[in-house]
Amino acid sequence: MDIQEQRLLAAVIRNHCWAALATQGAEGPEASWVACAAAPDFSFFLLHLSRLAAHTRNLLQDPRASLALSEREREGQDPQSLARVMMQGRAEVIPRQHPDYAAAVQRYQERLPASVLLFEFDDFLLFRFVPTQARFVGGFARIRTLDAAALRQTAAV
Amino acid sequence: MDIQEQRLLAAVIRNHCWAALATQGAEGPEASWVACAAAPDFSFFLLHLSRLAAHTRNLLQDPRASLALSEREREGQDPQSLARVMMQGRAEVIPRQHPDYAAAVQRYQERLPASVLLFEFDDFLLFRFVPTQARFVGGFARIRTLDAAALRQTAAV
Repeated sequence: MDIQEQRLLAAVIRNHCWAALATQGAEGPEASWVACAAAPDFSFFLLHLSRLAAHTRNLLQDPRASLALSEREREGQDPQSLARVMMQGRAEVIPRQHPDYAAAVQRYQERLPASVLLFEFDDFLLFRFVPTQARFVGGFARIRTLDAAALRQTAAV
Repeated sequence: MDIQEQRLLAAVIRNHCWAALATQGAEGPEASWVACAAAPDFSFFLLHLSRLAAHTRNLLQDPRASLALSEREREGQDPQSLARVMMQGRAEVIPRQHPDYAAAVQRYQERLPASVLLFEFDDFLLFRFVPTQARFVGGFARIRTLDAAALRQTAAV
């Protein structure tokens, strides 16, 4: 993966908060939408989810998850040319009493300021998605597979 | 679901081709990105996928799938306010000799003209995703569940 591809991948992660999430439902995989805040080194992604949502119930049953980010679709442009990343890993709750909780809340709220009020509600949980593998498509048929270390490296270029 | 919500859901489907797909991978659910073309009555969605892609191999093993579409993220806007739809169903190949194949290709290529050349490649397969259930979020905490008939109804309003 060359430095231009690393920069493009880092930009896809930094410029987008609205991600697709795949979780394990009782009747198969479920796709949904979530806001997310990446750690500065891309080692984890924070999600703040309501217990009322199906994806939250799914994650509490089975933490295996996949998070995907993409450049925004533009009218008249071939969507296959969009840069996108698909990550696989696990998403687990950070409890309020956990030593990482305060810093995670701060990170999430900096990235998603409209979320601040939702932290008052007891039915919201803060999850940390930790990717173990990623696939990056930098355009048509330009596919790269990365482990977590290679993904973190793209945050540093 | 009132007529305004039905219209908003129909617009999310009509105005976007770039969808999130969840498939069943060997190690858990996998999220990825796909171009899709909705049937005029929303009874199915066409996907044209390379055999080389992980989601294609997953679907050939297990057709259970979930397709999700969303309004585009905008800088500075709370992403939770975006209208989005999550559908669950099955995605199965339409073989070239199937009576529906020619009309499906035409529909797909009308919606995604840049794809025409890819139909020359043998390693691409045309899938039909048929939703059996959908969830629509028309903004924060405005969630509706629809069966396939109710989803088709939104195409007619």
